[in-house]
Amino acid sequence: MKKIALALVGLTLAASAAAQMKPEDAIKYRQSAYSTMSWSMGRIKANVEGNYNKDEVIKAANVLQSLANSGMGALYLPGTDKGKGWEETRVKPELFTNKELAGKVATDFNREANEMAKVAATGDAAAAKAQFGKLGETCKGCHDEFRINK
Amino acid sequence: MKKIALALVGLTLAASAAAQMKPEDAIKYRQSAYSTMSWSMGRIKANVEGNYNKDEVIKAANVLQSLANSGMGALYLPGTDKGKGWEETRVKPELFTNKELAGKVATDFNREANEMAKVAATGDAAAAKAQFGKLGETCKGCHDEFRINK
Repeated sequence: MKKIALALVGLTLAASAAAQMKPEDAIKYRQSAYSTMSWSMGRIKANVEGNYNKDEVIKAANVLQSLANSGMGALYLPGTDKGKGWEETRVKPELFTNKELAGKVATDFNREANEMAKVAATGDAAAAKAQFGKLGETCKGCHDEFRINK
Repeated sequence: MKKIALALVGLTLAASAAAQMKPEDAIKYRQSAYSTMSWSMGRIKANVEGNYNKDEVIKAANVLQSLANSGMGALYLPGTDKGKGWEETRVKPELFTNKELAGKVATDFNREANEMAKVAATGDAAAAKAQFGKLGETCKGCHDEFRINK
């Protein structure tokens, strides 16, 4: 009972914090986070396809992991299926309605990003390359479902 | 001797990776990373000034820590003292010439962001508030020196 009450308080607080954020800021923050992920993926790609630098891959993987676990879902405020952050949002409205699929792609990304950070820490270049492939698939999985092509 | 040789290889690789990145992408990536930090600082602020949610602060602090340690300096490519990413860069040219001061503000931010993540993990709200203040000072320290006011 206490656990349920606390969970409800958590929801209220999250809703309250979300209510304070402007829609354009929420869109800008999520666009920024994805762009930061893109930078990080590019860094790992350059390393697994070229000369492998363990520290570079660790740094990039840690950024991806922290963002995967950051709770970015809170940035998809109701009504932000349209709107402009740095640019017009490219989100498909389905992200706000197909909660099951949205949850699945988020969980997939989360799992593989955590694994990427673990593998990066070992310094095993071949394993990092394989895991980078798996992680990239989860990015693509979400893009295919929920991102409008430019 | 081997160490020096390896360090030189490291520099060459970094330079090579940097050479492959378009200036506008470098500016966009750094603007995105700062915007992601702004989101994270706002989350911590809301928690230390309102109802404290330990998990929220941990998530935000981990993002800040990963970015502080990500090696963003590589995004300040020669020639990117001017140019447009999401918007015109707001960097002052002094960042590229006053290496000593640039190194100092970066080191300050790095140290306090690492400490913020440590303090967040303890769940001590008062300590998090104090550390948030210290961290914010290092953001301001860099802005005052190297960011053009809007």
